[in-house]
Amino acid sequence: MAGGSPDKKYTVHFEPDNVDIVVEPGANLMETAIAAGVHINASCGGAGVCGTCNVLIKKGKVESTRTDKVSKKDYARGVRQSCQSLIMSDLIVEVPVESRLEKAILAREEVEIATQMPATLTTGWCFNPPVSKHYLVLPPPTLKDNTSDLSRLLRCLKRQYKLDKILMDFGVVKKLAQVLRDGNWEITVTALLDNKPPPRLINIEPGDTRAKHYSLAFDIGTTAVRGQLLDLSRGKVLAHSIDYNRQISYGEDVISRIAWTQKSGGLKKLQKAVIATINDLIKDLLEQGRIEKGDVAHMVVAANTVMVQLLLGLDPKYLRLSPYVPTANTIPLIKASSLGIEVEEHVHLYTIPSVASYVGGDIVSGIVGSGVYQRNKLTLYMDIGTNGEIVIGNSDWMVTASCSAGPAFEGGGVKHGMIATNGAIEDFDINPSNFEPVINTIGRIKPKGICGSGLINIVAGLLEAGVIGQNGKFNTNLPTKRVREGSDGYEYVLAWAPETQIGKDIVITKVDIDNLIRAKAAMYAGCQTLAKSVGITCSDLEQVIIAGAFGSNINIERSITIGLLPDLPRDRFIFIGNGSLLGARLTSFSRDLLDDARRVASMMTNLELSVSIDFMNNYTASIFLPHPNAEEFPSVYKRLSKLQKVGGGG
Amino acid sequence: MAGGSPDKKYTVHFEPDNVDIVVEPGANLMETAIAAGVHINASCGGAGVCGTCNVLIKKGKVESTRTDKVSKKDYARGVRQSCQSLIMSDLIVEVPVESRLEKAILAREEVEIATQMPATLTTGWCFNPPVSKHYLVLPPPTLKDNTSDLSRLLRCLKRQYKLDKILMDFGVVKKLAQVLRDGNWEITVTALLDNKPPPRLINIEPGDTRAKHYSLAFDIGTTAVRGQLLDLSRGKVLAHSIDYNRQISYGEDVISRIAWTQKSGGLKKLQKAVIATINDLIKDLLEQGRIEKGDVAHMVVAANTVMVQLLLGLDPKYLRLSPYVPTANTIPLIKASSLGIEVEEHVHLYTIPSVASYVGGDIVSGIVGSGVYQRNKLTLYMDIGTNGEIVIGNSDWMVTASCSAGPAFEGGGVKHGMIATNGAIEDFDINPSNFEPVINTIGRIKPKGICGSGLINIVAGLLEAGVIGQNGKFNTNLPTKRVREGSDGYEYVLAWAPETQIGKDIVITKVDIDNLIRAKAAMYAGCQTLAKSVGITCSDLEQVIIAGAFGSNINIERSITIGLLPDLPRDRFIFIGNGSLLGARLTSFSRDLLDDARRVASMMTNLELSVSIDFMNNYTASIFLPHPNAEEFPSVYKRLSKLQKVGGGG
Repeated sequence: MAGGSPDKKYTVHFEPDNVDIVVEPGANLMETAIAAGVHINASCGGAGVCGTCNVLIKKGKVESTRTDKVSKKDYARGVRQSCQSLIMSDLIVEVPVESRLEKAILAREEVEIATQMPATLTTGWCFNPPVSKHYLVLPPPTLKDNTSDLSRLLRCLKRQYKLDKILMDFGVVKKLAQVLRDGNWEITVTALLDNKPPPRLINIEPGDTRAKHYSLAFDIGTTAVRGQLLDLSRGKVLAHSIDYNRQISYGEDVISRIAWTQKSGGLKKLQKAVIATINDLIKDLLEQGRIEKGDVAHMVVAANTVMVQLLLGLDPKYLRLSPYVPTANTIPLIKASSLGIEVEEHVHLYTIPSVASYVGGDIVSGIVGSGVYQRNKLTLYMDIGTNGEIVIGNSDWMVTASCSAGPAFEGGGVKHGMIATNGAIEDFDINPSNFEPVINTIGRIKPKGICGSGLINIVAGLLEAGVIGQNGKFNTNLPTKRVREGSDGYEYVLAWAPETQIGKDIVITKVDIDNLIRAKAAMYAGCQTLAKSVGITCSDLEQVIIAGAFGSNINIERSITIGLLPDLPRDRFIFIGNGSLLGARLTSFSRDLLDDARRVASMMTNLELSVSIDFMNNYTASIFLPHPNAEEFPSVYKRLSKLQKVGGGG
Repeated sequence: MAGGSPDKKYTVHFEPDNVDIVVEPGANLMETAIAAGVHINASCGGAGVCGTCNVLIKKGKVESTRTDKVSKKDYARGVRQSCQSLIMSDLIVEVPVESRLEKAILAREEVEIATQMPATLTTGWCFNPPVSKHYLVLPPPTLKDNTSDLSRLLRCLKRQYKLDKILMDFGVVKKLAQVLRDGNWEITVTALLDNKPPPRLINIEPGDTRAKHYSLAFDIGTTAVRGQLLDLSRGKVLAHSIDYNRQISYGEDVISRIAWTQKSGGLKKLQKAVIATINDLIKDLLEQGRIEKGDVAHMVVAANTVMVQLLLGLDPKYLRLSPYVPTANTIPLIKASSLGIEVEEHVHLYTIPSVASYVGGDIVSGIVGSGVYQRNKLTLYMDIGTNGEIVIGNSDWMVTASCSAGPAFEGGGVKHGMIATNGAIEDFDINPSNFEPVINTIGRIKPKGICGSGLINIVAGLLEAGVIGQNGKFNTNLPTKRVREGSDGYEYVLAWAPETQIGKDIVITKVDIDNLIRAKAAMYAGCQTLAKSVGITCSDLEQVIIAGAFGSNINIERSITIGLLPDLPRDRFIFIGNGSLLGARLTSFSRDLLDDARRVASMMTNLELSVSIDFMNNYTASIFLPHPNAEEFPSVYKRLSKLQKVGGGG
């Protein structure tokens, strides 16, 4: 009875997901698919202009006018744009493979990461989260069919979703009888689908909870921990949060943290510190997203190897002893609650695999997120942070190294340094005539301190204005009160006390500048050394991807000015923000990328810079702004010499 | 250098196990295999007469004379009897499939179970425990090979044992670094191999611990819990232990236990009670076997469905409400310690799958252990206990039913009843002239009470001697002081106080006899009803296998006399002892039998006797010794009438 009376409802059956949903007549087909948890591409967000959401109506009637996004031939055989179709009868709808590739999700995400060249990120992945929810209506038991609750559930999962040979968490068995009856035999199960079958049932809830399906992605850095709350039913980021890693009390770098673990009870203390940080972030994320804790089904962590071992309570002792052996590059799935993480018992923690003691899952995550492993272009990937990591390679091969840059890029070891959050100075300009600054903070509020990208901009600006020299020393003869002698030697006042949130002058000191110079020297020397190890120079690089725990951006020009990045044509640079968190998020959205992460980790060759004489030489030669070798930074030397003719500094 | 100097040692390599061992020249090949953890059949125990231990010497020299157990042709291609071969050089030895079928293990076990017709038990299984130990020598890491500890382990497992795609318990990762270094890179891993790949690593120990590899098998009965300690490296039973199920304080049968769980905190109390029982038994078993707790690697439990749900803390409420639905017939593997069982964290608990609410894993275990599912013979399988279970069928089909017999068969509801352990009267004879008893106890010590098999023997003896009539009433006119009126009505004194351990007269009362009659009536009526349901009568049965928690034996003749067993030719009966424990033990020895257990559970059709009018009629008609219908028990009626002519009873 298609067409039907006004109080009639229609059942729409989606293939190949094999999911049914009952809707009002005239409902939009794409919205219906979303409500049923069926994913259809929609690059344009349902505006009808991209033609990626086409589906095949195998049976039944929809109201949908043909546009140029559907050929006449396709229209004749039943292809329709789902976003432009209204449901006019019971339907059987097939979502074709091309409409299931969820490239659209990424397009939406990137707005929040970086606006530059999003197409260079990883591509071609399906939206198929490693945890999925399935709604089931079971026939209630009778004396003639009184098989066990579990058999009934498995029978139905096989029939309805073709899920077979399922593993069961005992937690599901434990609450099975009550949930089935509370839900009046209508339930939703959560299945964990790692890269390979068999699936594992990890949770069961009464009723239809498919719309409440969330994941947490974390980047655990040495200095800061960043988290995101993800909506797994719609492929969206719902909330971000960031905080210092509380392990900072036990040392700013990984080596001092490892030393701490060797004290009695030390490992436990460090583990507790990072877990407390994570728990606070989770609380904040859930509040921001107005999400119940019980609706979080999964968790992904990307971190360097030391952070991973501390999180899991694995003694990191052997990471700093030659031959620098980590306990495991691939960590088995574990229950997050077993570590003290405040999520429900069924939430499994997936840890992005690592390569070596100092090349961790954070870098693997970034490579997966940025898609370096998918392309032929000879690429340099730099993750700029306390533990700086570098990769050179493409889809065929990759070499990697890590260099301890120190915490300057995350605001550490800097008098007024802070992580990239509200109130951090991230933009800086200077009036070359009176040396007065123009500052901008994250959140456009009164300044509290300086974040890593701010520090780079400030040092580059001071250099160009001649306030500091190429050796990083202050020019003390300038007609400005802003350059003065402070408790740590000479300094430049960025903001006077009344203009700040902290009620104190915010300054950058000679010590801060020296720390930044050492940090950038380590990163740059690492790039040089790694490039030479594969027989190339920096000028051969076809692409440079920059990741880092900066705020919304890093200024490429100014990073080249201080000698952090090589002096290459500017269109070769892409900034992707926090690559580690990007990869953690994308693997939450796609189990295919979990596979890719394992593959990437195993294809990387690690170079130990700590034992490289070449690296030490390169490092020592780089303690200068931008570099003593003018040929390596021609554009910077050209500009500096021009500026010095105009102004009077240097 | 075969033949070699006196201080030379030889390396023997066994295939397909891919295991090496170093031995003295002249060592016995079979003993060497055992020491290496390689299992070779030896039905005759190494005496050289059975020819089941033949192996193929692929390379090297052994000293071994040809007997008629090896054909000339086989001898020429290198086949040797391993028990008759001495090692004279480095060897490569292949153990052929037929020598790996560990029928011999069963032959050794049966001595402890029952001496009758052992060949009727399950056959054809391989000795391949579901947990196995693998010894590894890893190359220590160097700067050139500084892969993670875990990758090194997995690489070696793949090379040496062809184990691939291994799952890891996080517990292994947690102690990995330390164990590898404690063992100086020589370690033993424990792998859990359920029926299907992939294997899961559950433990890692320093050094070679293959010889210390144990399992626990438990039968958890409503009345008593029985445990065995098994040696998984040699396929032996090391110790037995038995105790009352402490849940008895909460009711003698499963229905009253279920009622208890519905009180506040009741389920937890019952779970704790059985776990305390298990923990005490484990302690006793380890002491008897002089085994460290840490060397136990596995645990198998067979129990009825109610006992399983109480053990696991699964609310049994729906088991007693129509339509009688259990939570799960197949329980996922869980860590035993998570229930409070006192074993190491890595020990997984395997629960034999069940069929229905009142047809549990105990009966499935018995069917697997007795091999009913392997043969064509139309078989009746009876598990006689508080919860009596019956199966009729063969390799093609099986029907099953359960009847609540009450605890009489386990000594419950009987004034001086006790479980079948030391001091229990199990054998009874009576002098027909003076009505004096001849009793025998388990352990041949002074009597403490009466066990189930004793009770059957006593009632049959009293009936034959005319001390009681076919209605169970005492003949009070006999010239003996042993029949007297006690606090519970008439009774017969089995032992006077000074002859006992308890310092009191041990008696059997009219109430005890009535309880036994009701129990045997339930079992017999169950058999009749089940037989009729498949269109046969008891006389069609080609084989009757009797299992039960009796001591060393049950007297078939006397069981027929009281009407518990059908009056069939005596050579059709086989008593296998505790079938539930037998199956639990065998599945500890063979992962193939785990598969069989799942298959058996799924092929059984359950008949609900509680709703059968036929059963109620049969039951009421059976409240008589042996049965009011003389045609059903011709041999018993014949004997009774003969005895009554001789004596004067009845």
